[in-house]
Amino acid sequence: MIAELTREETEEFLREQVVGRIGCHADGQTYVVPVIYAYDDGYLYVATIEGRKTRMLRANPEVCFEVDRYDGPAGWRSAIAWGTYEELAGEEAERAIAILAERFGRTGETRRHGPESGLRTVCFRIRVEELTGRAVERSA
Amino acid sequence: MIAELTREETEEFLREQVVGRIGCHADGQTYVVPVIYAYDDGYLYVATIEGRKTRMLRANPEVCFEVDRYDGPAGWRSAIAWGTYEELAGEEAERAIAILAERFGRTGETRRHGPESGLRTVCFRIRVEELTGRAVERSA
Repeated sequence: MIAELTREETEEFLREQVVGRIGCHADGQTYVVPVIYAYDDGYLYVATIEGRKTRMLRANPEVCFEVDRYDGPAGWRSAIAWGTYEELAGEEAERAIAILAERFGRTGETRRHGPESGLRTVCFRIRVEELTGRAVERSA
Repeated sequence: MIAELTREETEEFLREQVVGRIGCHADGQTYVVPVIYAYDDGYLYVATIEGRKTRMLRANPEVCFEVDRYDGPAGWRSAIAWGTYEELAGEEAERAIAILAERFGRTGETRRHGPESGLRTVCFRIRVEELTGRAVERSA
């Protein structure tokens, strides 16, 4: 029994979950990578470090974003979004950090890497342009 | 603290998890979709029904496959594979169903949809050509 979730139900699910997967595609290769995120008013916020995913996201900002929760044989719930990668700087990056910190506290997820680590923090958001949600419920 | 997993550790992780996400790309769009899978000797086996993902996988069989386990602030583990979609028929499809049934029992995950449901079961596997695994462990 597969049910489509309403926009409200899907957004509620995005707000309650913490791990999502970004699917991006550049130079003929698809890449799916897990991230800690916070959903806020039509945007998915992420703080990460420079690497393969940031290179690919800059090369092709059109992405897919997926969240799921598996409840065993009883069923599962998922949300799939399509949207655009927007890298953030200055005050916008500070705001992203604040949104993530509010969601997670000052844990590793939102800790900025100092220059001594050699890793540059990259803050970005995905502007959600299309959003679908599904729930699968099974009777025994 | 990010550690690369060995091939053996990554395969062990793939064997223990049940939900993965396929990332595919066709006609300029990337799609990430969760599936129940079983890993067996270099192949990821899936039984699903006809739909958007099977259309896209046929159009472009080069895919990414992602599995993760989030352990809260303590860290997480993930595996990312790249490989090729292979649709299965006849005895090969039967073997895929048997592998999934051995992993999950005769639950909804491996139940074939009868013709009366109007949904055709599609069995496929992804031949893993490249595999990476990572573990992130954080001290408090």
